[in-house]
Amino acid sequence: MKIAIVYDSGYGHTAKQAQAVAEGVQRVEGAEAIVLPVAENPEPWDTLQDCDAIIFGSPTYNGSLSARLKKFMEDATRPVWSSMKWRNKIAAGFTNSGAMHGDKLNSLIGMSLFAAQHGMIWVGLDLFASTNPEDKNRIGGWLGAMAQSDNASPDITPIKSDLETAAHLGQRVAETTKQFISGQ
Amino acid sequence: MKIAIVYDSGYGHTAKQAQAVAEGVQRVEGAEAIVLPVAENPEPWDTLQDCDAIIFGSPTYNGSLSARLKKFMEDATRPVWSSMKWRNKIAAGFTNSGAMHGDKLNSLIGMSLFAAQHGMIWVGLDLFASTNPEDKNRIGGWLGAMAQSDNASPDITPIKSDLETAAHLGQRVAETTKQFISGQ
Amino acid sequence: MKIAIVYDSGYGHTAKQAQAVAEGVQRVEGAEAIVLPVAENPEPWDTLQDCDAIIFGSPTYNGSLSARLKKFMEDATRPVWSSMKWRNKIAAGFTNSGAMHGDKLNSLIGMSLFAAQHGMIWVGLDLFASTNPEDKNRIGGWLGAMAQSDNASPDITPIKSDLETAAHLGQRVAETTKQFISGQ
Amino acid sequence: MKIAIVYDSGYGHTAKQAQAVAEGVQRVEGAEAIVLPVAENPEPWDTLQDCDAIIFGSPTYNGSLSARLKKFMEDATRPVWSSMKWRNKIAAGFTNSGAMHGDKLNSLIGMSLFAAQHGMIWVGLDLFASTNPEDKNRIGGWLGAMAQSDNASPDITPIKSDLETAAHLGQRVAETTKQFISGQ
Repeated sequence: MKIAIVYDSGYGHTAKQAQAVAEGVQRVEGAEAIVLPVAENPEPWDTLQDCDAIIFGSPTYNGSLSARLKKFMEDATRPVWSSMKWRNKIAAGFTNSGAMHGDKLNSLIGMSLFAAQHGMIWVGLDLFASTNPEDKNRIGGWLGAMAQSDNASPDITPIKSDLETAAHLGQRVAETTKQFISGQ
Repeated sequence: MKIAIVYDSGYGHTAKQAQAVAEGVQRVEGAEAIVLPVAENPEPWDTLQDCDAIIFGSPTYNGSLSARLKKFMEDATRPVWSSMKWRNKIAAGFTNSGAMHGDKLNSLIGMSLFAAQHGMIWVGLDLFASTNPEDKNRIGGWLGAMAQSDNASPDITPIKSDLETAAHLGQRVAETTKQFISGQ
Repeated sequence: MKIAIVYDSGYGHTAKQAQAVAEGVQRVEGAEAIVLPVAENPEPWDTLQDCDAIIFGSPTYNGSLSARLKKFMEDATRPVWSSMKWRNKIAAGFTNSGAMHGDKLNSLIGMSLFAAQHGMIWVGLDLFASTNPEDKNRIGGWLGAMAQSDNASPDITPIKSDLETAAHLGQRVAETTKQFISGQ
Repeated sequence: MKIAIVYDSGYGHTAKQAQAVAEGVQRVEGAEAIVLPVAENPEPWDTLQDCDAIIFGSPTYNGSLSARLKKFMEDATRPVWSSMKWRNKIAAGFTNSGAMHGDKLNSLIGMSLFAAQHGMIWVGLDLFASTNPEDKNRIGGWLGAMAQSDNASPDITPIKSDLETAAHLGQRVAETTKQFISGQ
């Protein structure tokens, strides 16, 4: 079982979140995480075709997906959409921004609409929100995993709880994908 | 395998769409559709707990879910959310309005956010859009099934293609649910 | 110049936010705030017709507007929409929820779509986000004012910075409305 | 009074819609429309600073703003956001896609969130929806102007009613801007 993590990152914070998602995926026996930053993988169509699930990641800039992730989506649609090659793949998403809320929801909605247009099945976050900064889902989102990063090095931000939230999403996607492909 | 269709309808048009969704569900061997208009089923918690999937339906009024469907969501959350009883149930949605676009997307987003908060897995519509009024998905939505109704009797509106779109969604949800529970 | 604040509140937290919005409105010379909780004002059509602006407020429950505020919207639409009586009134919104993010954005989007359908003009929050809990816009939203409330008395939550954010929105709406009606 | 129309267009259809918006703007005495396709105007900061209103336009690709318009937004934010240079400018939006619904709403939401983050004031469409293809707002949107284009030359698609809808938005933005700046 292969799970791709396709993401954009401006300054390394979303990349760190992507890495945490990958670690969560690999907690599940038989699941392999394939991490694909879009800036370095402009046309990963064959790799993605082999995957059972695709998890999308983007910074939230100005209340929506980064232009680079959006360009990947447009590029991806041309070769795969007309034959609905991603139909029934599992999909999920994560996003990071400087503000706590930061209109992050709108980025996740953008990913889920893209996934729906490709006939994919969307998996969110089954975690209660907490206002304790040390807890998973301290930010309080469910459509996907959210993180908040200060204007500091990715070594120290996003904080541990946000990375654990990201890992939880990765693990959940892997478990869901496993169940779904076992049922074929 | 049981699939609930929980919906609100103001004048019978969304009810007709709900009926079409139910017919689509029943095309799949082993799938039973349970149709629950919220106005007549204020507390269907036990019935819903027995279901493997829940499909939500609402008219789009003023660009969002009807107050009655929203009240059902709030009522449902109290008994089921704190123990995440709907976790991993399959979810989907449909909506109807008088205008072609009519901000229907926002109602489907409202349903998908509700489903995500409950840990459900969202299934959309794997149909290309068409501008031929006789074709399925003539309106062009993917997060769920959309219908458009004129100010006329539910006997004649929404039109056949919108009902076939709704049935397609029901069938797809049943097939997806079947695969998902087979993999447990 | 009259500015209505039409809101729903489940446990008093959004009511407190509404009060702060009203205080912000009244900072502007010549502006009168009229506070209308929907539960106690089921049909305030004449009062609203006299107002130059309407600010909507709702808790975010399950990722969208409360059923009670939505019901107000549906009720309001019947008497005023067909003659577009609210056309060119200024509109704005605020929302409160238990989680920091809590999908609050979707409630504000619901309000702004409602306002757009009524031909109203939408004013958001001209405040940079901060991650300092003592600063205005500590949550980081712009389409309207956001607040976060713990499971505690409205006497202590939402915190001061969220109330100042709400007051800032009220003041901004009053200033914008003043300019807009002066230009007639 | 100057009103910029900043848009992206893939195949000329959204460009035609932009032209109609410009014609609507120029119906208002004293209003000058400045049409800026982003592909040819990568850094129009000084021109935009001189404008009283900015109308954004984009095709809806995969349920959201085009990557090119999003890149413009990210580029614009750097020079203008930190000093909130666009605060209180009037904003509006239009979008075009191949399907009738086509998740166009989400593109307009993306524009309105961007505008809100910049402290702009949002003006939508004060037009009732119609299901008569010859009428303005035949598609049925309000947050901005929507158009639908077939896979054909921009000479014949979008159709006249969609262009009239676009022109109506342009005129409305010009009238609103005029009133707003007269009131300063």
